[in-house]
Amino acid sequence: MSIFTINHRSNKSQARIGVLKTEHGEINTPFFMPIATYGAVKTQSSEEIKNLPSNILLSNTYHLYIRPGTKILEKAGGLHNFMNWNGIILTDSGGYQVYSLEGMRKIDSDGVTFQSHLDGSKHYFTPEKVVDIQRSIGSDIMMMLDVCPPGNANQKEWIDALHHTTNWAKRAKKHFDQTKSLYGYHQIISPIVQGGTDLKLRQQSASELMELNCDMYAIGGLAVGEPKEEMLKVVNYLDSILPKDKPRYLMGVGTPADLVESVLNGVDMFDCVIPTRNARNSQLFSFDGKINIRNAKYAHDFSPIDKNNFSPISNQYSKAYLHHLFKTNEILGLRIATEHNLKFYIHLMKLIRDNIQSDNFEVWTKKFLKRYNNE
Amino acid sequence: MSIFTINHRSNKSQARIGVLKTEHGEINTPFFMPIATYGAVKTQSSEEIKNLPSNILLSNTYHLYIRPGTKILEKAGGLHNFMNWNGIILTDSGGYQVYSLEGMRKIDSDGVTFQSHLDGSKHYFTPEKVVDIQRSIGSDIMMMLDVCPPGNANQKEWIDALHHTTNWAKRAKKHFDQTKSLYGYHQIISPIVQGGTDLKLRQQSASELMELNCDMYAIGGLAVGEPKEEMLKVVNYLDSILPKDKPRYLMGVGTPADLVESVLNGVDMFDCVIPTRNARNSQLFSFDGKINIRNAKYAHDFSPIDKNNFSPISNQYSKAYLHHLFKTNEILGLRIATEHNLKFYIHLMKLIRDNIQSDNFEVWTKKFLKRYNNE
Repeated sequence: MSIFTINHRSNKSQARIGVLKTEHGEINTPFFMPIATYGAVKTQSSEEIKNLPSNILLSNTYHLYIRPGTKILEKAGGLHNFMNWNGIILTDSGGYQVYSLEGMRKIDSDGVTFQSHLDGSKHYFTPEKVVDIQRSIGSDIMMMLDVCPPGNANQKEWIDALHHTTNWAKRAKKHFDQTKSLYGYHQIISPIVQGGTDLKLRQQSASELMELNCDMYAIGGLAVGEPKEEMLKVVNYLDSILPKDKPRYLMGVGTPADLVESVLNGVDMFDCVIPTRNARNSQLFSFDGKINIRNAKYAHDFSPIDKNNFSPISNQYSKAYLHHLFKTNEILGLRIATEHNLKFYIHLMKLIRDNIQSDNFEVWTKKFLKRYNNE
Repeated sequence: MSIFTINHRSNKSQARIGVLKTEHGEINTPFFMPIATYGAVKTQSSEEIKNLPSNILLSNTYHLYIRPGTKILEKAGGLHNFMNWNGIILTDSGGYQVYSLEGMRKIDSDGVTFQSHLDGSKHYFTPEKVVDIQRSIGSDIMMMLDVCPPGNANQKEWIDALHHTTNWAKRAKKHFDQTKSLYGYHQIISPIVQGGTDLKLRQQSASELMELNCDMYAIGGLAVGEPKEEMLKVVNYLDSILPKDKPRYLMGVGTPADLVESVLNGVDMFDCVIPTRNARNSQLFSFDGKINIRNAKYAHDFSPIDKNNFSPISNQYSKAYLHHLFKTNEILGLRIATEHNLKFYIHLMKLIRDNIQSDNFEVWTKKFLKRYNNE
C-alpha cells in the first residue's frame, strides 16, 4: 500500500496536493514540520503544537541519542509516549548535526566518529546504528545517515559525500528491511539526495537512491549557504528526476518565500528552525513581511501583533506588551512570538494547499511574494 | 461598604474564611497571589493563571515604573488592559525592592532616592508619587510606600523604619483620598506594619496605622532572614492587635508550611516567589514534600510528576520527561514546573479554606505538616 496519494496537480506549475499516511495519522501535503530537536518544540507544549494545528513534528536522532539516550526512550515505549505526543514524528538522522561539529568528527567508509557537543565523549554512527536508534525512538518517518557537506564545500567533497551517502543508504535500507519496529507500528525510511549544486551529481545521487525503491525521497545539502537561485535550480531539476508519485522532502528549508517557491517546484514536505529560532530573536512573521518586536517604535503600538485571524494568541496581546516582555526578558514573550510564527507557517501551508486545490496557486503566489517582500 | 466579609471562624485557632471584594471580582480568603513582577507571571500566560484557578495576581510598582513606565501603562488604559488580565491586581509599592538595591538608595524624611537596577538612572519615590504610579497602573489594591529594613537590621533601624513608614502612610492616605482612579473603578490602599521582630514596635506601628482606618492591613518586614519562630510570634501577636474584621496580608511569605501556620494565626492573604522561582530551579512541591527533578534518579522514573489530581499538566508528563527537559535546558521544563508548583499552592489554599469551613483545619494541619515535613 502506498503511503502517499496525490489528490490534485496544478497544470501551471509542479505544485500538487495530497495525503501522506502514517500509523500515527494522515497529513495533507504540502506541509511544514515544527522542530522538536530534543523532543520538545522550544517553549511550546505538545498540546500547543497539536492546536497550531499540526499533527507532525520533527525530532533529531543525534540529539536524542546523546540525551536522554536510547535506553530511556525504550523504557518510555518510544518518543511518542515520552513526550506525550500522539501525532506523527519524523526524525532527522543526525548527519547534518554531526557534520556541523567542525573538527569534532571523522568520516570513514564505514561510518562517522564524532564527539558529543555536551561532554566531548566519543561516539560512532554507522548507517545501521542510526536505523537502530530510530527504532528505539519509534519515529514514524526515519531518515538515513547521509553525508551533508558544508555550504563552502568543493566538487570533490560533493562527490565523496555522494558516494558515502549512496553506500550508506544501501546498508541502511538492508538493515531496515532486516529489523522490526519495537512498538508494533510500521515505520517509513527515507534516503537523502546529495550532490551540492551540481545537477549532474544530483542526477547521479537521485538515480542511485531511486534503485532502493523507497517510499519517499529527501533533498539534503541545500540551504547551507548557497544562493537561493542555486537552491531552486536544484529543486526544480530534481522534480524532473524523482518519482512523481512519491513525497519529496526539502530538508531545512526555509523562509516563507522559500516554501512557496519550492512548492511551485514540486516539494511536499518542509522543516526549518526559522519560525521558532527567529521568534526567540524577536522576529515576527506576517503576511506583510517581518517585524522586529524589539524595535523602539513598538513600545507605544497598542495594535494587535497581527491583524489577521490565523493566530488567536496574537490578537490577545498588543505589540506594546510583547515589546515589553522582550525588553524585560520574560519567557512569556518567547512563547507568544514562537506560537505566532508557527501559526503563521502552518496557516501559510494551508493557504498554499487551498490555492493549489482551487487552481489559483500561481496567481496567489505572485500576490503573496509581492506583498510579503514589499514590507 | 466593607470590602471584606468573614463567613466562618475556627474556634480552635485564629483561622477564618471570607470573601474580599474588588471591582475586578471577588476572591475567597485565605488566598495566595502568583507574582507577575513586570506584568507577567514568569513563563505563564494570563489565561494559564486564570486556569490555576486564580483570579488575582501581584505585580510590582517599582518594576513597572522602571519598565514599561507610567506613560505606556496609561496609554494602554492600565495594567489590566496591557497584560490582558481581567482579574484582580495587587501591586506592591516597591519599598522592599528599592531597599534591596544595596548602596544604590538613600532615605530622607520626604522619600527615597534610588538608582534603577537596569541602567543606573536616578529616581525619587515619595509616598504620594507611589500612589500616583499605582493610579497609572490601575491596581485594585495598592500598597503604601514603606521602609522595609533588611533581615540583619538592628533596633535603631527598625525604629527609623517604623517612623518613616507611619509618616509616609499618613501622606499616602491623604494623597489617595485627594486623588481619583484613572480608569473609573475603585482602588483599595493598604498600609504596611513594620517593627522587625520587636513586639512593642509592632504594636506601635499597627496602632499608628490603624488610626488611618484603612480597608486592609499588611504585615511587612518579615521573611527577610529571621528565624521562622520569630516570624510566627510577630504574626500571632499582630492577630491580637489588628482589626479582626479586616483582611491581613502577610507579605512575601512563604513555604507551604508557612502558609498553613500563618493561617492558623489569622492571616488572609499571601504572596511569594517560592513556587515560581523554585520551579525554575527544578524544585517541585507535592503533598509529600519537595523533590529536585534534576536528581539523577528521576531520569528513569516514568511515574507522573504528581499522583494527586490537582495539576492536570503533571499527569500529562512523567518525571523522566521533565528531568530530560531540565537537562536539555528546554523552556517547556520551566513552564511545566512553574504551572505545577502554582497549582500546588492554589490547591493548598483551597484545602485550607475547605478545612476551615468544615471545622477540621487544625486536625488537617497536623496531618499535612507531618506528611509534608517527613518526606
